[in-house]
Amino acid sequence: MTERPQQLAHLENLGDATRFAGQIYLLIPKCPLLENFTPTEVNLLSHFMEVYRAADNMEIIREGDGGDFMLIVIQGRIEVRKRDRYNTPQLIATVEPGHTLGEMSMIDGEPRYATCVAMEPALVAVLDRESLARIILEQPLLGAKILMELVLMLSQRLRATSNRLMELLDAQGQNSAGVL
Amino acid sequence: MTERPQQLAHLENLGDATRFAGQIYLLIPKCPLLENFTPTEVNLLSHFMEVYRAADNMEIIREGDGGDFMLIVIQGRIEVRKRDRYNTPQLIATVEPGHTLGEMSMIDGEPRYATCVAMEPALVAVLDRESLARIILEQPLLGAKILMELVLMLSQRLRATSNRLMELLDAQGQNSAGVL
Repeated sequence: MTERPQQLAHLENLGDATRFAGQIYLLIPKCPLLENFTPTEVNLLSHFMEVYRAADNMEIIREGDGGDFMLIVIQGRIEVRKRDRYNTPQLIATVEPGHTLGEMSMIDGEPRYATCVAMEPALVAVLDRESLARIILEQPLLGAKILMELVLMLSQRLRATSNRLMELLDAQGQNSAGVL
Repeated sequence: MTERPQQLAHLENLGDATRFAGQIYLLIPKCPLLENFTPTEVNLLSHFMEVYRAADNMEIIREGDGGDFMLIVIQGRIEVRKRDRYNTPQLIATVEPGHTLGEMSMIDGEPRYATCVAMEPALVAVLDRESLARIILEQPLLGAKILMELVLMLSQRLRATSNRLMELLDAQGQNSAGVL
């Protein structure tokens, strides 16, 4: 990683993720992104990630911010909150080790969709867009694998979200145009 | 393409897409998947796609079916319909040349989310999962580019769908857990 994301400057940087490769590998059964990864691939990937420690109650990602990185939760519980129309943060998910956060902004560069707060001391492995670009150039098959898993995860989330929206519109007798 | 998708057997196969590469290239401004493609890349990609002609009113994709291909609409207008809880097809979109359909099932192998029907004689360029796998192996940078664009498209759709769901839940005073 050539330059550290400034949005992570308040967290403690623990260096590249190679030291944590074994710990990350153990997360695979709980990590959709890595579900098809071999130990060798996890090890390779860990060279392109950096690990950060967040103290209890610390914001790791803030809704509306810029930021072109995603992260894998290695340790700790993290709450995901999004502001409603009254600007009140609403809990939309609590995630555990193995979960990934921030994929959408890493890829599309749009502002963060929600805020992520550590609910206990947490460790996260960070992959930014530049490192992903380097993986694609230097390790194209690993790059394709990561991208394929991202497409899969987003596709499944989009199905679930679209179904939920469709049901709500349906129940309200509303038009479903544009559900997908 | 080694074997043609059986779900397309009722359409007229026009062979590989190289003959249509020029026409596909002209669609780029209207095609999010190809927005960053050069003419050379479109030409390369067209070797991995096959073109089919659908008659007016013909189903190209059927909700609930298997099918591991996606398609780019080259010509014609296509309606996307999904059955509501009364099993009545509801129009959810009308798409035009440049639009892609079926990406989710190509990637995740889940049954088709909706039905796509040609509203006039239509031409579609088909990319199946096996061809995508071949692209990744034989042309890794092109493969990464396609996957990157798919992630981008899905990410943007997921944002839009999540926002719409969030607004609806919000308006109903419902809990937003699991919006994303």
